[in-house]
Amino acid sequence: MDTKRPTVPAAEEILGGYFPVLDHGFVSLVDYMGSDEDIERAARVSYGYGTRKTSQTRGLVRYLRRHHHTTPSEMVELKFHCAMPIFVARQWVRHRSANINEYSARYSLMPLLFYTPKAENFALQSQANAQGREGGASAKVYEEAVRRWEELRSGAGEGYSWMIEENVARELARIDLPLSTYTQWYWKIDLHNLLHFLTLRVDDHAQWEIRAFGEVMAGIVKRVAPLSYEAWIDYDVQGRTFSRGEREALARLVVSGEDGRLEAREGSALSQNDLKGFGLSPREIRELVAKLERPTARDFELDLSSMRDAEDVAREMAEAVPSFE
Amino acid sequence: MDTKRPTVPAAEEILGGYFPVLDHGFVSLVDYMGSDEDIERAARVSYGYGTRKTSQTRGLVRYLRRHHHTTPSEMVELKFHCAMPIFVARQWVRHRSANINEYSARYSLMPLLFYTPKAENFALQSQANAQGREGGASAKVYEEAVRRWEELRSGAGEGYSWMIEENVARELARIDLPLSTYTQWYWKIDLHNLLHFLTLRVDDHAQWEIRAFGEVMAGIVKRVAPLSYEAWIDYDVQGRTFSRGEREALARLVVSGEDGRLEAREGSALSQNDLKGFGLSPREIRELVAKLERPTARDFELDLSSMRDAEDVAREMAEAVPSFE
Amino acid sequence: MDTKRPTVPAAEEILGGYFPVLDHGFVSLVDYMGSDEDIERAARVSYGYGTRKTSQTRGLVRYLRRHHHTTPSEMVELKFHCAMPIFVARQWVRHRSANINEYSARYSLMPLLFYTPKAENFALQSQANAQGREGGASAKVYEEAVRRWEELRSGAGEGYSWMIEENVARELARIDLPLSTYTQWYWKIDLHNLLHFLTLRVDDHAQWEIRAFGEVMAGIVKRVAPLSYEAWIDYDVQGRTFSRGEREALARLVVSGEDGRLEAREGSALSQNDLKGFGLSPREIRELVAKLERPTARDFELDLSSMRDAEDVAREMAEAVPSFE
Amino acid sequence: MDTKRPTVPAAEEILGGYFPVLDHGFVSLVDYMGSDEDIERAARVSYGYGTRKTSQTRGLVRYLRRHHHTTPSEMVELKFHCAMPIFVARQWVRHRSANINEYSARYSLMPLLFYTPKAENFALQSQANAQGREGGASAKVYEEAVRRWEELRSGAGEGYSWMIEENVARELARIDLPLSTYTQWYWKIDLHNLLHFLTLRVDDHAQWEIRAFGEVMAGIVKRVAPLSYEAWIDYDVQGRTFSRGEREALARLVVSGEDGRLEAREGSALSQNDLKGFGLSPREIRELVAKLERPTARDFELDLSSMRDAEDVAREMAEAVPSFE
Repeated sequence: MDTKRPTVPAAEEILGGYFPVLDHGFVSLVDYMGSDEDIERAARVSYGYGTRKTSQTRGLVRYLRRHHHTTPSEMVELKFHCAMPIFVARQWVRHRSANINEYSARYSLMPLLFYTPKAENFALQSQANAQGREGGASAKVYEEAVRRWEELRSGAGEGYSWMIEENVARELARIDLPLSTYTQWYWKIDLHNLLHFLTLRVDDHAQWEIRAFGEVMAGIVKRVAPLSYEAWIDYDVQGRTFSRGEREALARLVVSGEDGRLEAREGSALSQNDLKGFGLSPREIRELVAKLERPTARDFELDLSSMRDAEDVAREMAEAVPSFE
Repeated sequence: MDTKRPTVPAAEEILGGYFPVLDHGFVSLVDYMGSDEDIERAARVSYGYGTRKTSQTRGLVRYLRRHHHTTPSEMVELKFHCAMPIFVARQWVRHRSANINEYSARYSLMPLLFYTPKAENFALQSQANAQGREGGASAKVYEEAVRRWEELRSGAGEGYSWMIEENVARELARIDLPLSTYTQWYWKIDLHNLLHFLTLRVDDHAQWEIRAFGEVMAGIVKRVAPLSYEAWIDYDVQGRTFSRGEREALARLVVSGEDGRLEAREGSALSQNDLKGFGLSPREIRELVAKLERPTARDFELDLSSMRDAEDVAREMAEAVPSFE
Repeated sequence: MDTKRPTVPAAEEILGGYFPVLDHGFVSLVDYMGSDEDIERAARVSYGYGTRKTSQTRGLVRYLRRHHHTTPSEMVELKFHCAMPIFVARQWVRHRSANINEYSARYSLMPLLFYTPKAENFALQSQANAQGREGGASAKVYEEAVRRWEELRSGAGEGYSWMIEENVARELARIDLPLSTYTQWYWKIDLHNLLHFLTLRVDDHAQWEIRAFGEVMAGIVKRVAPLSYEAWIDYDVQGRTFSRGEREALARLVVSGEDGRLEAREGSALSQNDLKGFGLSPREIRELVAKLERPTARDFELDLSSMRDAEDVAREMAEAVPSFE
Repeated sequence: MDTKRPTVPAAEEILGGYFPVLDHGFVSLVDYMGSDEDIERAARVSYGYGTRKTSQTRGLVRYLRRHHHTTPSEMVELKFHCAMPIFVARQWVRHRSANINEYSARYSLMPLLFYTPKAENFALQSQANAQGREGGASAKVYEEAVRRWEELRSGAGEGYSWMIEENVARELARIDLPLSTYTQWYWKIDLHNLLHFLTLRVDDHAQWEIRAFGEVMAGIVKRVAPLSYEAWIDYDVQGRTFSRGEREALARLVVSGEDGRLEAREGSALSQNDLKGFGLSPREIRELVAKLERPTARDFELDLSSMRDAEDVAREMAEAVPSFE
């Protein structure tokens, strides 16, 4: 189709393609509005008559992101079609700034597709981090877990199909489906709020399963608005906030010389006690040490070879719906 | 405690009390800000110098609601503590204007409490209404449903407890809990958005289980802001919108005489075909007929005798958590 | 440009064109995402497997709007470039669901363009409606008003230009510009929230000047999503809500016969006192009488002959900026 | 009044008191819901059964803020009555997460109160910072500015009063009031969004006039939720984000030793060119140098001696309304 709207070839290339996530999930970009140039155009309405116009798009996009001038990036919008386990959907939906149309289990029949973690993602409760996982569970425990999942899901699926056959209201028939059941939705959001969502969701503290979705969506952003993506990596994903106390510490260790030159302050050192003196708790001191390590590179390039057809994906979903009269 | 803030005795009477909903759920008002008089006070900042001040609070509150002047009622805020099955929470959370803190199954252990519909609420899929239920299922089907629920939940609970014993990450252990499992949250919202939520959720089209929560919350509103509650019943719960085509029909059937007198227009009648001529579909004609019936009274008075202590409710929850080392 | 995105020829025809509003304002559609078919597509994710698929797009769009199922229409997004007097912008900005980038008077120089009401829009304070206008002011008063406006704006413009010359901070130089000064912004919103905005802003109770903008935007919606526009006219613009008390009255005057036939109830009439008995105030009785009149047709067709080039409009703005060294 | 709701004596002490801001503006706390303990209580619903309960309120509040776990602080709500010049209100209103009831110039008569900057705040356009001010203007320019302001406002006030006398619609009579005219509103917001607002508005980049309001509101927060206030100062007001490139630089200059000891890396230095090699622009290098300076202490203690009575303030406003028949 022909359009006068801003168009991004790299986004068009993947538009309507389906990227698999986990065992039965997917993310697909189904529409987009605008790109980096439209962020610039929106910002220019603020920088109007009587202002210098020398900035290049990249410099402006980076400046805006660094200084949290977020309104111009709200001018870009993305629309996705996604499928994910319900426990992932429950975390996802907490981001309130998106528009959502979810598959309705009151009207419609649920495809009987369930998420099964792979052995390498089946982990123990973290000791250090109350909400995380760490280390791997033993192969034996994993095998037993798989056996139990299969048995439970088989029972839940049979129960669901039986109630549908008996014409029980669908809204009741579904109440014992497990949280691992896949649901799907259309999800539309502006770029500013999407990047905020992704910052939280590609982070180590997010549950691994939702991170898998975040990483694919980040790869899609890279195609729709590459300069915003790059700035987001540099300032958000790899950026870290230093508190008042942490800045007190840095100011003792680093000194700025002439011409913007930075130097380690000769012989300067801070003990745990010194750091406590700046108000840092033991936990904050550990966090500070981690922040002072060199950032490891992160990138979210899409694997185009994994992209699937919409029809293919739809067929797989349809075949998992219980058949009935 | 002593306060200079606006205080409502009828709300204080139930503050911190727990009203049971369904078999293991509850709603409790844990805090509130303002009442009908604060809506008036906020509206008065719009109706400032040089305006008439004769309106009484009730008249003003009703005028504002009738004319969709909603901002003054945003000045009242309510905070609830609620427990509900996850499938209910999933519908509830779609109202994006509330603040939510939900129990985290990543950090914490889930109480093994599941919702079991009563026989009288166990219904068939509606033929007329794609999303509803109607008629009752046979006693035999209900018995079999209960048997299956018990078996599935017993299996899901055992699986969960076993994984917790094996120290599997909690965020993974919970993925096969059923949608009937109870969760809980703090939920805070302003009165305008709460009434919008309640209009949708006490409606016949809402799933019966969420309506049960809506009805208790409506009863709480009646205590916090009784004039707003009354206006909401009159203009929203019992009000109906008539479309252009429906107003064309009414204008043929009703005529206004002198002094605001209304009269049925002598001998006037409209056939199905006449109504189609105004653009009404067969479905809209059925809807119009329903709207022209006398509204049946609705009220949501709380049953104070059902109110329970916070400690009581907390103990019941705690006892349902799987014990482990 | 070539795109795989949904494209609407009637919207493309006006994309980037500028529609004049008031004496120096404009509305321009600069981007859009989706149309009626995308509302249907989003709704279909709710009406999934095991549901009937017979509805046509028009019927579905009308059903969704009539029953306030608003989420599918959030899937369509429109982006506008607009210029309006600041007092209009202040009303407009209260709709919080839009994304905005406004021209910054802290960074940039303001074009010295001011809104001058025409004689036919220069009206007296309404006696009946505390916030409205009615009747026309005398020609003499209007002439004097124009003289005063010209004098004030000339003074304000000179003061502004003088401070800019003296290099006073722009954020201070602008503080005595009048509320009639034009500002401009990019404004992006989803279709659901746009139609809510337009319902309020094309209404008689809205200030005439913002209505002028609403009417052009409604004409743009008609091109982007014609079925949604039509449903909006029928159910929102021309629809009216009848309260519990008003429905009590209607139920006495109209009776439904066989086959969806409606009849005026033989000899039925309601006096003012009867209506008061249903809880209606004198003001509500007047409102009811108005609602029972035949709705007058409303339509917001764009006048394509008024459409201007972006460059043209930009030049006019630029020429109104005070020149300085 | 007696209440079971959480009550904060330090907040009660100022409740309903009016703190002057600028020449005719004010901020008053008129209601509040909750405090630091309620943030803890809300967080505890996430940290449920099977979690350690050792954290103290202060540690938990700081942890939540440091890690951007913002939902618990949404459980505290504050309501303000404020008066400010319209150009300040225009910046303020861009924060969309608040509830607002503004004085209506369509219904009501505007008090003729205008903001006059003091000599010490009357500054030149900044050369370094496109949106800022710097240095002072000459006394002569200031005198001339005052003269012009007085003349313009006198004309605007006369024009307004004359139109009101002529019974011109108020919504038209006000269009030539200057942006320096005071307006007022009720403004209600949760603590999370309030602190986000305040972070932006007490910042050097905010216009001085809105900062004056932000500083008083920060002082109010200190009374309502002192632990959240302290954490906000440490992590937000005085915290700074370091980008990927900046962290690359820090990692070269600082090394962590045993036991959480931090040391300046012996002889390590980075030239401008080295910093450019990490991707930093010249502007970012200047920003980095500033961030490495010791943070200067900030505090926003209220001056209780300036607190005024509501009646006093209301009388002053009322007396500025043009009298008419």
